[in-house]
Amino acid sequence: MPRTAFEVDLTRAPEELAVKGHNRWHPDIPMVETFKAGDSFRVECYDCVGGQVANDDCANDIRDADLTRSHYLSGPFGVDGAEPGDLLVVDILDIGPLPGSAWGFNGIFAKENGGGFLTEHFPEARKSCWDLRGIHASSRHIPGVRYPGIAHPGLIGCLPSRALLDEANRREAELLATDPSRVPPLVTPPYAETALMGQMTGPAAEAAAREAWRTVSPREHGGNCDIKNLSRGARVYLPVYVKDGGLSLGDLHFSQGDGEITFCGAIEMAGYIDLGVDVIKDGMAKYGVINPFFQSSPIDPQFSDYLVFQGISVDEHSGEQYYLDTQVAYRRACLNAIEYLKKFGYSGEQAYMILSTAPVEGRIGSIVDIPNACATVAVPTEIFDFDVRPTAEGPTRQVSGAGLAKTR
Amino acid sequence: MPRTAFEVDLTRAPEELAVKGHNRWHPDIPMVETFKAGDSFRVECYDCVGGQVANDDCANDIRDADLTRSHYLSGPFGVDGAEPGDLLVVDILDIGPLPGSAWGFNGIFAKENGGGFLTEHFPEARKSCWDLRGIHASSRHIPGVRYPGIAHPGLIGCLPSRALLDEANRREAELLATDPSRVPPLVTPPYAETALMGQMTGPAAEAAAREAWRTVSPREHGGNCDIKNLSRGARVYLPVYVKDGGLSLGDLHFSQGDGEITFCGAIEMAGYIDLGVDVIKDGMAKYGVINPFFQSSPIDPQFSDYLVFQGISVDEHSGEQYYLDTQVAYRRACLNAIEYLKKFGYSGEQAYMILSTAPVEGRIGSIVDIPNACATVAVPTEIFDFDVRPTAEGPTRQVSGAGLAKTR
Amino acid sequence: MPRTAFEVDLTRAPEELAVKGHNRWHPDIPMVETFKAGDSFRVECYDCVGGQVANDDCANDIRDADLTRSHYLSGPFGVDGAEPGDLLVVDILDIGPLPGSAWGFNGIFAKENGGGFLTEHFPEARKSCWDLRGIHASSRHIPGVRYPGIAHPGLIGCLPSRALLDEANRREAELLATDPSRVPPLVTPPYAETALMGQMTGPAAEAAAREAWRTVSPREHGGNCDIKNLSRGARVYLPVYVKDGGLSLGDLHFSQGDGEITFCGAIEMAGYIDLGVDVIKDGMAKYGVINPFFQSSPIDPQFSDYLVFQGISVDEHSGEQYYLDTQVAYRRACLNAIEYLKKFGYSGEQAYMILSTAPVEGRIGSIVDIPNACATVAVPTEIFDFDVRPTAEGPTRQVSGAGLAKTR
Amino acid sequence: MPRTAFEVDLTRAPEELAVKGHNRWHPDIPMVETFKAGDSFRVECYDCVGGQVANDDCANDIRDADLTRSHYLSGPFGVDGAEPGDLLVVDILDIGPLPGSAWGFNGIFAKENGGGFLTEHFPEARKSCWDLRGIHASSRHIPGVRYPGIAHPGLIGCLPSRALLDEANRREAELLATDPSRVPPLVTPPYAETALMGQMTGPAAEAAAREAWRTVSPREHGGNCDIKNLSRGARVYLPVYVKDGGLSLGDLHFSQGDGEITFCGAIEMAGYIDLGVDVIKDGMAKYGVINPFFQSSPIDPQFSDYLVFQGISVDEHSGEQYYLDTQVAYRRACLNAIEYLKKFGYSGEQAYMILSTAPVEGRIGSIVDIPNACATVAVPTEIFDFDVRPTAEGPTRQVSGAGLAKTR
Repeated sequence: MPRTAFEVDLTRAPEELAVKGHNRWHPDIPMVETFKAGDSFRVECYDCVGGQVANDDCANDIRDADLTRSHYLSGPFGVDGAEPGDLLVVDILDIGPLPGSAWGFNGIFAKENGGGFLTEHFPEARKSCWDLRGIHASSRHIPGVRYPGIAHPGLIGCLPSRALLDEANRREAELLATDPSRVPPLVTPPYAETALMGQMTGPAAEAAAREAWRTVSPREHGGNCDIKNLSRGARVYLPVYVKDGGLSLGDLHFSQGDGEITFCGAIEMAGYIDLGVDVIKDGMAKYGVINPFFQSSPIDPQFSDYLVFQGISVDEHSGEQYYLDTQVAYRRACLNAIEYLKKFGYSGEQAYMILSTAPVEGRIGSIVDIPNACATVAVPTEIFDFDVRPTAEGPTRQVSGAGLAKTR
Repeated sequence: MPRTAFEVDLTRAPEELAVKGHNRWHPDIPMVETFKAGDSFRVECYDCVGGQVANDDCANDIRDADLTRSHYLSGPFGVDGAEPGDLLVVDILDIGPLPGSAWGFNGIFAKENGGGFLTEHFPEARKSCWDLRGIHASSRHIPGVRYPGIAHPGLIGCLPSRALLDEANRREAELLATDPSRVPPLVTPPYAETALMGQMTGPAAEAAAREAWRTVSPREHGGNCDIKNLSRGARVYLPVYVKDGGLSLGDLHFSQGDGEITFCGAIEMAGYIDLGVDVIKDGMAKYGVINPFFQSSPIDPQFSDYLVFQGISVDEHSGEQYYLDTQVAYRRACLNAIEYLKKFGYSGEQAYMILSTAPVEGRIGSIVDIPNACATVAVPTEIFDFDVRPTAEGPTRQVSGAGLAKTR
Repeated sequence: MPRTAFEVDLTRAPEELAVKGHNRWHPDIPMVETFKAGDSFRVECYDCVGGQVANDDCANDIRDADLTRSHYLSGPFGVDGAEPGDLLVVDILDIGPLPGSAWGFNGIFAKENGGGFLTEHFPEARKSCWDLRGIHASSRHIPGVRYPGIAHPGLIGCLPSRALLDEANRREAELLATDPSRVPPLVTPPYAETALMGQMTGPAAEAAAREAWRTVSPREHGGNCDIKNLSRGARVYLPVYVKDGGLSLGDLHFSQGDGEITFCGAIEMAGYIDLGVDVIKDGMAKYGVINPFFQSSPIDPQFSDYLVFQGISVDEHSGEQYYLDTQVAYRRACLNAIEYLKKFGYSGEQAYMILSTAPVEGRIGSIVDIPNACATVAVPTEIFDFDVRPTAEGPTRQVSGAGLAKTR
Repeated sequence: MPRTAFEVDLTRAPEELAVKGHNRWHPDIPMVETFKAGDSFRVECYDCVGGQVANDDCANDIRDADLTRSHYLSGPFGVDGAEPGDLLVVDILDIGPLPGSAWGFNGIFAKENGGGFLTEHFPEARKSCWDLRGIHASSRHIPGVRYPGIAHPGLIGCLPSRALLDEANRREAELLATDPSRVPPLVTPPYAETALMGQMTGPAAEAAAREAWRTVSPREHGGNCDIKNLSRGARVYLPVYVKDGGLSLGDLHFSQGDGEITFCGAIEMAGYIDLGVDVIKDGMAKYGVINPFFQSSPIDPQFSDYLVFQGISVDEHSGEQYYLDTQVAYRRACLNAIEYLKKFGYSGEQAYMILSTAPVEGRIGSIVDIPNACATVAVPTEIFDFDVRPTAEGPTRQVSGAGLAKTR
């Protein structure tokens, strides 16, 4: 257990810490601390919404969550000698909930407040709370399931360069301009009001906040990639854009399915993560790297029995044919899985949350067979307390669909 | 080894068989044979293009392949008692190349003739031929790799109903009408001229051919889903739309990566597949099924070490920001993997073919984090003869990029 | 599917074939055929007792099986250029039951006729017959289980040298002399009467038969190792002792647990095996090899949930303490597993057969912690149709223990 | 991270703690604390020899280790309501090195001081020290390897009953009497002098110490089973013999191969382990339980490529034939693996230590094929920095064999 390089205090808001993190990306945010290549250190992190959600049975906090204040990142951390063009090598040494805080939550955001992958089907705010016990999660709100989590940081990346900052702001503004009043919006543009800029203060911080990236989107540097396999034992290679690297991370997930489909979408937790750092000099050119890549962990659970649901890129409401659209195909696959699980007693929202929190795999099937894309979602059968496989007799009701936390 | 219910003859064209298969989907194609629930049988299949491609070192046959004559399916097969609304349970018992034909091919279609996922980057026809030896494939055209294949049928499904036939024809025609002259086309519409309608003959066959689905696209019934895990040991549940089911299949792949990205995209082979069949009465309603689903096989190889490349939904040429577009993100992930592999000596086309033929996994990362989608492609490191993992020293040239079969 | 180099005829006894195999090991048995390095070929094999056991519901054939006529091997096959000191590289390309013979059997030998690992507990002859369907086996005699088999040859090896033949005969005779009348015997000594010596005939064959090894025991060259992971996709490295190698094999198993504990102990089948051969010149010295070794197959099933039973080296009857005796510890582990399974309704003999035929793992625990050795047997929970994991309520009877074939 | 229920202090000897653990098993040792079913708690543990070994480059401490003071156990812990005949359900929630102590050691005990599995071959004391970084271990004393550890407690079990205590003492005394002066000894009999009896004091403690079990041997209750898969995520079922259970554990291993063959045989570490406890009332009768059993963890690493070495039960020195002796067969398998690894530059002792510390699998091959037993040791190829698989060219020296810590 290495030394803790960044501490959080769950009894205080992220803005109140003595050494603050940040909830925007900007090249000028100063380093919290700088390490040497080969060092290891522990980082504590707030949950994705910085403590706005409670471990209770009411979803009002999910409904009312202020998403402009999401993703409080811990960092940035420097590594001596890292320069633009290098690769920062980050070993995920350990990850877990904070002491005394062995719980997490999953939310369905209301359509008016961010929505989610299936927001047209499940537009209302819902919440499930999860007990974290060793490698397993279970919930009083969703009976009959227990998963070994593949814990990971939802966000990890190095600070962007000025050029990259500007380029992404340009292209995102152009997209936003195509439909600026859409709900949910097409883009989360810079928004200075709730920005927390780490150790920056005064006019410099205010100016930076007006152009700093929101943390919602993944970008070239990584960021909010929500890749479940950036897990304990994985080694991540991150492009470096600023002197000393500027590694930041947060939004820890105890467990998540591929796609994080409910948007508040994993088992979200406040926790710690232990990291080891190293540098490959000039690694971006040596290996032709634009985006982060990683080596997977040998201890991710490998299930031997999955039920795999297929979907194609035809809209479920209009019957419209989409051209090679994996987004639509994966949505249909998820809807197919949900209908299946409902036959065992789950509500649609519960099944939606299972897909979003369990170690399910979202796989690309065919992506070239015009006009339909095909995608699949693979659900491990072992996460259920009952036998979920098909039989000639058909399914029997195994659980109650009444459990989720709703709004009041 | 069960009895062979459908035979092919590799010395003759599919149209010349005494008992013919079909290369279109239509509800009225007569059953080749009808089995009882619980039966097992062997089915032989042509390769995806019915023998148009040779095991040689020239890619002219790929360049000139007539894709309207692709996907010669073996079947349809009936199962006594199967009725619309049932689920046909199909066990994949075994699968392999035909005796005396232990080879397969992978092609990059020319942009003018179908293209592929990365056709803007690799617009010219190329071919690699693969030796199949037990569970492993290797190629004289792509050095340094050897894979355990996850063999599967690229196409499997039951005959559609009349209503489903019409509905898909309607929506696809609507899509086609939005840009009818696009190259490659948006849709592969019905095309009677090269249709092979199984045991249908005369005016009925001619009429059916004018409305029958092409086999290129997957649809509600399954079809060309190109899911690599429909492999030996898997159990597939197929919706039934016509009396007796009408199971057809073909386009066998010895090995394929998720997405089948070169389009001619797996290690394509002529082969046999052994099937067991059963029926779940009223299974579609019992389990809420619209599309096929399956139980995975316990003997698919599970690698313990992957390099995983990320991509986001920003166009690589224009820098345009796409809104949650996994198609673009997966393309970027694949391009990132290709750039990486080129550093070891592969040509871009070779690396493209490796991603298309090796047991790589295409995974959905984040799909809700506006505006960027994130997707990943995971490449098992063990398929390479050399160590492909990053080092501080950087990569060294391990192989020659000169090997692929080109056009003359 | 490569050319068949050795054929069997299940309607005839092994002794009646035109090209005969052998049921003894001897350096002078002539090659059936000689291949080149790099070649592949198919070999057909009798079941372990050469057809003495029928697919029926009576165990008399197990009770009366003549074990001096067991293990009819197919071969020996030569590889050009192989010489003593080399390593023969054998790829297991495929393996399966013979066409029209998709069944296998498991037997408990009577104590008077060979016995088995638990013969003191289960001294009477029993039989179960298994249906083989794709990668799965199930039995009308043992309900509630269905396994993906890890098929393999029980015996594989090269012909021994004269020196090795003599040395093993010496040491085995010495052991036999310590208790020559033991039941079951300590050793299976040479026995000319029922010897089948391949293509040897006349006085030479008779002389060789008097000194040839019986096939029951594994020895330096491999032989009856009963290692379940010599499976499809594995690569075996065999020491070469005679010119051209002299590869022989047989006793195919569709599935077996580690230890093959009932002695007739796997799902025994007549089948085919496809092999590829190569040579590493002087490989024994290069790699310091005395015994065979192998590279495992990536497609062996890897279960994610096992119940693992422990045992220690204290005799279950006398309470005697054995000194670091894994044999006793593994026996106790198996007995513990059997007692557990009986609580779900199985008879002891059925549970014994499950351990002997399912892909269970027999592992060495502690082997140095004087005086008790500890061994474990790991049973995958997924092979059962019901949930076999412990609960607070305790087990319920799920199956009938009445099914096994008995003697009449 | 649950509350710490037992603390150690690495700057003090185990005997000096305020709340002491114990290094003997006896029914009367008082509970340290009693929990409720469902509780979780953290337990800190000394390393196997209670701090006698240092992280340095001299093996004198291994040579001189006092093994009568080994295995300082933390506990015993009670669970309310647990009674003899119940099963104590123990979830392994987490396990790791103590803060500030991220290292471990492996030792070869001298033949005069305990020896090890291959003590006739490697009779001298040696030591390797290991750096623990996240899930991986590497050593300055053994180059070229890096493993993901399967961390586990070497010892875990409940206090024995008086009857069980007496019975084991009887049988072990009988064995000892057969050769009381053997080196190493056949048995580690009770030895009061260095006994630490937890919270027992005075004459009661002295009396108990004279009959208490040494911790070296596993017994019916579990104890020193050295099963590597009692790892994070596993659930262990322990027989209860005394009121409240009396759970004790210790001897944490960061990583170990099956058999723990060097005897000081894992990567030994001081660490913490988080446990959850529950009770199955009358579980021993309900499930027919005599010894502990467990459900394996889904996050144990599953390698896809092993080199597997075979051994048979013929003595390597005398050529004597042993009758179905897996101990001898496993020894031969290990020796075969060591000879192989030496070809890449390792010394015999280094290779011996690799087998003892890496996640190798010791499997039982054939156990019924008279007279030879066959056993295998499976070495994952991915733990090496270089390609360890055989080639036609033969091995090249990859590492230096000079690194181990020796005595001075």
